[in-house]
Amino acid sequence: MKYRTVFPILLLLLSSASPVAAKSAIPAEPVQPIVPHKVTDPARVELGKKLWFEPRLSRSGFISCNSCHNLSMGGSDNIKTSIGDKWQQGGINSPTVLNSSLNFVQFWDGRAKDLKEQAHGPIANPVEMAFSHSLAVDTLQSIPEYVAEFRKVFRTDRLTIDEITLAIAAFEETLVTPNARFDKWLRGDRKAIDAQELRGYQLFKSAGCVACHSGTNLGGTSFQKMGLVAPYKTGNPSEGRAAVTGKDADRFSFKVPTLRNVALTYPYFHDGEAATLTEAVDVMGRLQLGRTFTAEENADIVAFLHTLTGDQPRLVLPILPASRDNTPRPKPFE
Amino acid sequence: MKYRTVFPILLLLLSSASPVAAKSAIPAEPVQPIVPHKVTDPARVELGKKLWFEPRLSRSGFISCNSCHNLSMGGSDNIKTSIGDKWQQGGINSPTVLNSSLNFVQFWDGRAKDLKEQAHGPIANPVEMAFSHSLAVDTLQSIPEYVAEFRKVFRTDRLTIDEITLAIAAFEETLVTPNARFDKWLRGDRKAIDAQELRGYQLFKSAGCVACHSGTNLGGTSFQKMGLVAPYKTGNPSEGRAAVTGKDADRFSFKVPTLRNVALTYPYFHDGEAATLTEAVDVMGRLQLGRTFTAEENADIVAFLHTLTGDQPRLVLPILPASRDNTPRPKPFE
Repeated sequence: MKYRTVFPILLLLLSSASPVAAKSAIPAEPVQPIVPHKVTDPARVELGKKLWFEPRLSRSGFISCNSCHNLSMGGSDNIKTSIGDKWQQGGINSPTVLNSSLNFVQFWDGRAKDLKEQAHGPIANPVEMAFSHSLAVDTLQSIPEYVAEFRKVFRTDRLTIDEITLAIAAFEETLVTPNARFDKWLRGDRKAIDAQELRGYQLFKSAGCVACHSGTNLGGTSFQKMGLVAPYKTGNPSEGRAAVTGKDADRFSFKVPTLRNVALTYPYFHDGEAATLTEAVDVMGRLQLGRTFTAEENADIVAFLHTLTGDQPRLVLPILPASRDNTPRPKPFE
Repeated sequence: MKYRTVFPILLLLLSSASPVAAKSAIPAEPVQPIVPHKVTDPARVELGKKLWFEPRLSRSGFISCNSCHNLSMGGSDNIKTSIGDKWQQGGINSPTVLNSSLNFVQFWDGRAKDLKEQAHGPIANPVEMAFSHSLAVDTLQSIPEYVAEFRKVFRTDRLTIDEITLAIAAFEETLVTPNARFDKWLRGDRKAIDAQELRGYQLFKSAGCVACHSGTNLGGTSFQKMGLVAPYKTGNPSEGRAAVTGKDADRFSFKVPTLRNVALTYPYFHDGEAATLTEAVDVMGRLQLGRTFTAEENADIVAFLHTLTGDQPRLVLPILPASRDNTPRPKPFE
C-alpha cells in the first residue's frame, strides 16, 4: 500500500530533474558542508562578543569565555583540562566553541540543551569563573555603556543573566567555520583534497568512524560510550552522561565531539590524554571499532582530518567599557 | 656677546612668520598630542601581534602578553597586581602597554631600556609566564608557520629570543592612542573639551601635576619618589629604582606613569591601591604636592583626565598556527 503512493512521486521527481542538475548534484555523503551563519541581529552579536571577552564575568577579573575557548586557537585552550579560578584544574577537556551551535546538546555530558543554557554554567562554576549570576548582573548594570547596549538589544533597563547568556549564545552562533577543503570537495571541487586525504576519508567511512562522526559537524549528534569494544583506561573521574541521567548504563557515555577543526583542538578526548591526532585515531580504532589501523591507514585518516579546518572567525578585538567607581571590583587573591 | 648673536636671528624669525601661521600655531603647552605610529615593516608587526597573543610563550600555555596587558581594557588587567603562573600574585601593578613606546625606560623601576629589553622579562619571570627563553624558541621553532614568518621578517632560519622580542616590540610600537579629545583641543579644536575639563587642565598645570606628567605621554620621562612631601604608606614591598641602582636615595622612586587613557587603566599607583581616579588625584595632591584638593578641584582634574582617552587599537584577533606533534606541550599543573 505504502509503495504505491511513494513510487509515482519518486518517478515524478526524477523526471522533472534536468540532466544538468543531476550531474552537478552533491553525491550523497554522510557529511555535509557548513553553511555560513547569517547574522540577523548584529547589535546582539556585538554585545555578545564583548561579553565573550569580558573577564569581569569572573570573580578574579582575569578569566573570560575566551580564556578556555580561545578563538586564536581553534576555540579551545590546547591543554588537557582547563585552568580555572585560583588555578584550579578543570575536570574535563574544554571542547571547542567553534561550530558548537551545530551540536544537539552542550557539554560533554549534554547537561545543557543549548548554547544559552550552557553559558549559564562557567560563570557560576566555582572551579571555572567562580562568580555568581547576580554579581555578573551587578557588574554590567553599573557600566552605562553596557546598560545602553542591553537596552538597545533587549529593550530592558534591568538586565538579568538571561539577557547576558542570550547575547553570548548569539555571538557563539556566528562561530562556524565554513570553506574547509573537505567542504569544497563535498561541493564538487575534486582538487580540494589530495589522493591521500581522499583515501583517509574513504577509510573513515568504511572503518565505521562515520557512524558517530557524521552530519555537518562530524559529530555532536549523539552520545557514545568511550571504550565500546575495549575499556578506556583513564585517571579522569568524569562519568559522562550518567551524571545527568543517574543511569549506570550511561557511565562513560559522552557526547561525540565534532571533528571540525580537529587539527587545531588538540589534545583529544574528554580527558585530553591523547596529545596527537595519530594517537587519537589509534585509540578510537582499537577501543571503538576493534580495529588496529596500520601506520599508513592512520596517516591517511589523519591527513583527511586536516582537511576539516575551516575559515576561522575573523574578529576585531572588542574594546570593553571601563568600570565605574561603583562597579564591584574583582577579587583575584581573596 | 651671546645676546648680540641671538637677537637678530629672533627678529628675523619673527619677521618671516606670516600673520596666518602665527594665529594657527599651537600654543606652547607642556603636553603634546600623540602622533599616530607609521608602520614601516608590516610583516614584523603582524608576527609581533601573534606573539603578543601567544600563550605558548608561557609554561602553562595559558598566559600571553595580553593576559596582563589586555588590549580590550586599556592595555592593562585592571587588578591591583597581576596573576601569574599557578596564580602567583605579581609584585607590582601591570602598567599599560598603550603608548609605552613613548616612555624613556620600561618597567616601574626602569630596569629595561626599551620595549625589546622589556619583553625579555615576563616570559622567563617565574612569577609571570614562568617559561624560559630557550623553551620559547624551541616551541616556535617547531611550528613551520612561525619559522616561515621569522624567515620572512628576519631572514634567518634559526630564530632566537632576540627576534621574538624584536617582533613583540615592533607590535607594541603600534599601540599608541591618538585623537584623544585633549589632543584635539591641543591642535586647536576649542570645543573638544568643556569648561570643567579645561578648568581641570589649568589646575593640573598650576598645582604642579604637570611637573612630572608632561610631554606627549603626560609622564614616562622621569623617576620620582612616591611620597615626596608626605610618606606613602603601603604593604607593597617594591623598592622602586633602588632595586636597580642599589642607592638608598632611590628607594620608592618609580617611573612616573603615563596619564594617557588613565580612565581605563585603574587601579592606580605601583601597588594598585587607588581604586578610582578621585582617590588617586587626592593622594597625589597631598603626598606629592602638599595640597589638599577640594572636592570640586578634584572633580575638575578627574574630568580633565577623562579627556586623555585616545583611539584604542583596532586589532583583528590573530589566528595562531597549530602546534605540531613535536612541539613542547604546556605544563599547567606540573
